[in-house]
Amino acid sequence: MRIECIAIGTELLTTRRVDTNSVWLGERLAGLGLGFHRKTAVGDSREDLAALFREALGRSELIVTTGGLGPTFDDFTKELFAELLGAELVEDAGSRADMLAFYAARNRVPPQVNFKQALIPVGAEPLKNPVGTAPGVWWQDPAGHPGVRIVMLPGVPREMKCMWEDQVEPRLKALAGAPVHTLRMVVAGVPESNLDERTREVRERHGHLDWTILANLTQVELLARGSDPADLEAARRDFEPVLGPDLVCLGDANLEDAVLAGLQARGETLALAESMTGGLLASRLTAIPGASAAFQGSAVVYTVAAKQALLGLDPVWLEGVGTVSEPCAIALAEAARQRLGATWALGICGNAGPDAEGGAPVGRFYVALAGPGGTTVRTHTLAGDRVELQLRCAALALDLLRRQLID
Amino acid sequence: MRIECIAIGTELLTTRRVDTNSVWLGERLAGLGLGFHRKTAVGDSREDLAALFREALGRSELIVTTGGLGPTFDDFTKELFAELLGAELVEDAGSRADMLAFYAARNRVPPQVNFKQALIPVGAEPLKNPVGTAPGVWWQDPAGHPGVRIVMLPGVPREMKCMWEDQVEPRLKALAGAPVHTLRMVVAGVPESNLDERTREVRERHGHLDWTILANLTQVELLARGSDPADLEAARRDFEPVLGPDLVCLGDANLEDAVLAGLQARGETLALAESMTGGLLASRLTAIPGASAAFQGSAVVYTVAAKQALLGLDPVWLEGVGTVSEPCAIALAEAARQRLGATWALGICGNAGPDAEGGAPVGRFYVALAGPGGTTVRTHTLAGDRVELQLRCAALALDLLRRQLID
Repeated sequence: MRIECIAIGTELLTTRRVDTNSVWLGERLAGLGLGFHRKTAVGDSREDLAALFREALGRSELIVTTGGLGPTFDDFTKELFAELLGAELVEDAGSRADMLAFYAARNRVPPQVNFKQALIPVGAEPLKNPVGTAPGVWWQDPAGHPGVRIVMLPGVPREMKCMWEDQVEPRLKALAGAPVHTLRMVVAGVPESNLDERTREVRERHGHLDWTILANLTQVELLARGSDPADLEAARRDFEPVLGPDLVCLGDANLEDAVLAGLQARGETLALAESMTGGLLASRLTAIPGASAAFQGSAVVYTVAAKQALLGLDPVWLEGVGTVSEPCAIALAEAARQRLGATWALGICGNAGPDAEGGAPVGRFYVALAGPGGTTVRTHTLAGDRVELQLRCAALALDLLRRQLID
Repeated sequence: MRIECIAIGTELLTTRRVDTNSVWLGERLAGLGLGFHRKTAVGDSREDLAALFREALGRSELIVTTGGLGPTFDDFTKELFAELLGAELVEDAGSRADMLAFYAARNRVPPQVNFKQALIPVGAEPLKNPVGTAPGVWWQDPAGHPGVRIVMLPGVPREMKCMWEDQVEPRLKALAGAPVHTLRMVVAGVPESNLDERTREVRERHGHLDWTILANLTQVELLARGSDPADLEAARRDFEPVLGPDLVCLGDANLEDAVLAGLQARGETLALAESMTGGLLASRLTAIPGASAAFQGSAVVYTVAAKQALLGLDPVWLEGVGTVSEPCAIALAEAARQRLGATWALGICGNAGPDAEGGAPVGRFYVALAGPGGTTVRTHTLAGDRVELQLRCAALALDLLRRQLID
């Protein structure tokens, strides 16, 4: 089934606002074995919308729109679809009653302009909005377009979500395909192009699956999609030896989850001493529910004084070896491990820019891992802006620990 | 000029990844007095891409694509445009040399598959990629489409951005309209609907400007657009008394920048003790270049043992008052201020979920601010998922300090 999403609102084109509704809808569709072929964001322009709706009616079997159902002069999703499909808009008595009740519950009377929201195209069904005043529309097999379904939803995420779950999904279940299954393999420590070459032969052997390689700053994901779970399982078995210790985890998990799970499985704990990453690594770990089972804390020590105050490092010695140096990273890790009584501790220092610092170029950083068997340290020099460098440094530090845990 | 953006990548349809490139590009276009009419996200499917490129060639004068220029099997932006426009792809000697130099600088040899990236359609010009290996393409007046410009950029934001600024904008300047100017006012501590009501009268008085109100978890933005900077300046003067201390900053700055700038202007410093926010607040501050001038560090103390080890808090006393409590927040702030010798310290504890903790419901948190005049503490109870709660808590803590600094 060809499905497209149309997000309506000039703010999506002219401001920093991104369309997150369609991300949520995409995840819900995947649960039904369905997915978008295309997502479009378009402004509140009558001409642009009419052109896009006309195209969509010609190419998609399910059209989901968000936005443009409000009471104001620039809301005309229903009106345009009705025009294109030659249907009249008539007031729906139930929708009018719902709106009056919504306002009455708040001791208010709807402004006259709001009654426009109770208009529904003839042949379509209203979708109740239990948390707002704009009803949605479900329009199946409109005249001249048999087999097409149009779903019009409000742009407010909270309204859109509950209407989708309660009223749209039940209607879609009859149409749902065989669910699509996904095999997701997260890889660390390997550049994307290297992974492409290294896995080509195995991917070709499993060529009946849909393959995607997704790289971001902190990890690379190999995704395979297929209708038969057994095919995905066979692919997984073939990939594991090829990826070896570079394979971080499967499923929904990421590098942070893998490290926390590895620590918990061994009954071990982690502490951090972060200079260059400034709390980012702690923040990524504590974003995960249950992190406190293994994560103890982080000394975010941005200044020499803080390195002394929280970790007891000697300022004179620090200035001597340099605050961006191997000895500094080692001292951070060992002090954090000792002070916080953790099994493992990562110590991170470096220069995230914008200027060279104490002889260290921008992008140079040192990661030390202190553990039961002693301390190891790695030096990296990478390119990127400040936040990119912090993200990559945090990921390399976690991966250093992960490899130690599976050793 | 009709301009559209095409973001390419299956991950934009099937994962939580959102297209942020087009948001950045939209802002740069506004600076040239231009703007997108439409933005589309589409997967790495040959058929879907070919259909969309064909449509775009029929309706837009400037087509900007991001993604699909990489070395892997599912990258074929250049190939498809070349096919549609009947042009051959030939190796560009300069692009090949750049790629070899890029790898040589890293003591590596490009994998064979990478040479595909040096292919450029005949009639188009390569755009150099100074920070990666995929060159872009500028294609003006392709055969059969006079007046059309196609810009193909990599999907990696850092590469896309510098190529746009250095190579695409100069080419577009000749086509640009009157630049659109923006007044951006960041507001904290006021819900969006309240801000809407409170500012309606002033907005109507400046009704010839385009107004937008944008809310996210950490702040609300009021945006005005117009062609005359004097109009925007007049609007700013009228808004300042209406917004009062709720106005955080103007321009590109955000709450974090405003707090760091306020501290620096007073020659003061900040330390943190974070439990519930787990390093997020430190991370947001240290993402800003030059943060170290005012920010000293954070004790991220996720466990009782960490609260003792890094801040000297008594575990027995802590268990008595509760680790999610007013007294705990106060003790965190005061210990951080004293240990790190900072002018100000924020202490944060709370329950970000998923489960109720020591009698505190999910969403309850306490923020204490210790300063030269003593310590104040605030209690909040909010709704949201774990990361939303951490973000809102971090913003409320920063805003507490900000209001103190302007008092």
